[in-house]
Amino acid sequence: MIRLFVPGDLRAGGRLALERSQAHYLIDVMRLGEGAEVAVFNGREGEWRTRLARSSKADWTLVPAAQSRPQTASPDVELLIALIRRSRLETVVEKAAELGARRVRLVISERTNPARVNVDRLTAIATEAAEQTGRMDVPEIVFPQTLSGILQTWPAERRLMFCDEAGDAPMAVQALSDCPPAGPWAILIGPEGGFSAAERSRIRATPCALPVGLGPRILRADTAAICALALWQAQLGDWRGT
Amino acid sequence: MIRLFVPGDLRAGGRLALERSQAHYLIDVMRLGEGAEVAVFNGREGEWRTRLARSSKADWTLVPAAQSRPQTASPDVELLIALIRRSRLETVVEKAAELGARRVRLVISERTNPARVNVDRLTAIATEAAEQTGRMDVPEIVFPQTLSGILQTWPAERRLMFCDEAGDAPMAVQALSDCPPAGPWAILIGPEGGFSAAERSRIRATPCALPVGLGPRILRADTAAICALALWQAQLGDWRGT
Repeated sequence: MIRLFVPGDLRAGGRLALERSQAHYLIDVMRLGEGAEVAVFNGREGEWRTRLARSSKADWTLVPAAQSRPQTASPDVELLIALIRRSRLETVVEKAAELGARRVRLVISERTNPARVNVDRLTAIATEAAEQTGRMDVPEIVFPQTLSGILQTWPAERRLMFCDEAGDAPMAVQALSDCPPAGPWAILIGPEGGFSAAERSRIRATPCALPVGLGPRILRADTAAICALALWQAQLGDWRGT
Repeated sequence: MIRLFVPGDLRAGGRLALERSQAHYLIDVMRLGEGAEVAVFNGREGEWRTRLARSSKADWTLVPAAQSRPQTASPDVELLIALIRRSRLETVVEKAAELGARRVRLVISERTNPARVNVDRLTAIATEAAEQTGRMDVPEIVFPQTLSGILQTWPAERRLMFCDEAGDAPMAVQALSDCPPAGPWAILIGPEGGFSAAERSRIRATPCALPVGLGPRILRADTAAICALALWQAQLGDWRGT
């Protein structure tokens, strides 16, 4: 069944307005008609079965029938990624949504090129991936901030898994195995050229930082981001099993 | 330093012919001149420092000086991936090279669309990723084969990590933690529509198969392939640390 994110409240018998792009997708692309079933979620009230209804000749709405799955929270892990080439950044955002990151924060560091970033487009990519992956929320895409600004206001309780390519950090699987599976986390990935030496020591001096290594080969930033999220989920998140 | 894969033998004072695309890259794109240093590897004799030399007005060669790193073998893990959309398959091949897969085998299953596959192009992508990631070999890209043909001739000693999206397999981190870190392995990823029920039971009936789950969300095939390789390397490969 088709699954859509909608911002509105979900109440049986209510009416959910469709964005123009959503209506186009349902009616013109998927060729659904009046009465067709569509699953929706809004990030607050679980997943609902709805039915497509025509409210006027050109206007379509979704009418929620009943909740099909309760709201669940994804693990509290956010991804901090330095600005990288657009196509690779889009891959990272799609994968972060599939891998359950709650938030993607874009980072400006010494060696990033502060190019224009289209946060709306990245949010649309995250939304589509969240719809397809079956999660109950859409990861927030946070407008770019400087690394120094982020570290200055870093919350003491959020642990920071720092993927440090310099090679002297313990392997991620080892470093994470000593950590209790609770509390908020973040994963920090540098730009293609890496963080500068000054940036590396500032990150490592942050009280909650946990430097980790990702194997003996040089990874592109997008590869490192995807792998770090998978390893975190497997060790501390919802891929642990029981 | 620029790093290139060359098929020829590496001997001090020998002469390595350059492919036209390599010469174009070194001379026209990177603007190197006679005497410039280039690192090369051939998958057999480690990494060597070479110097660019002009053999005639239009012909350039590389002259090996000395070995800079010894040959090392990557862990014996191969990736079997069902044919998926071209751009996603190219992402998988690039990442498999970065993540140290020794071989990528393309799989035709019931729900794959047996579209034409350009193995030469995939090999070029794998070669470029191997050059950049610093590994000592280039993963082989194996021409598509049917799943049933692959399973019929499956070697008894190669374990098969089967990423089974049906949801009743133990999580990968649990399943792999019981396995000794030795011997040949393969990772099997299905197409976007998944394997059929008949295919799933045939895979599970293969003596060396280890069905594993990759968390509670639905992953795209390319995401699953990248994550499965990372988890395998972290548990059984060269991301284990010491």
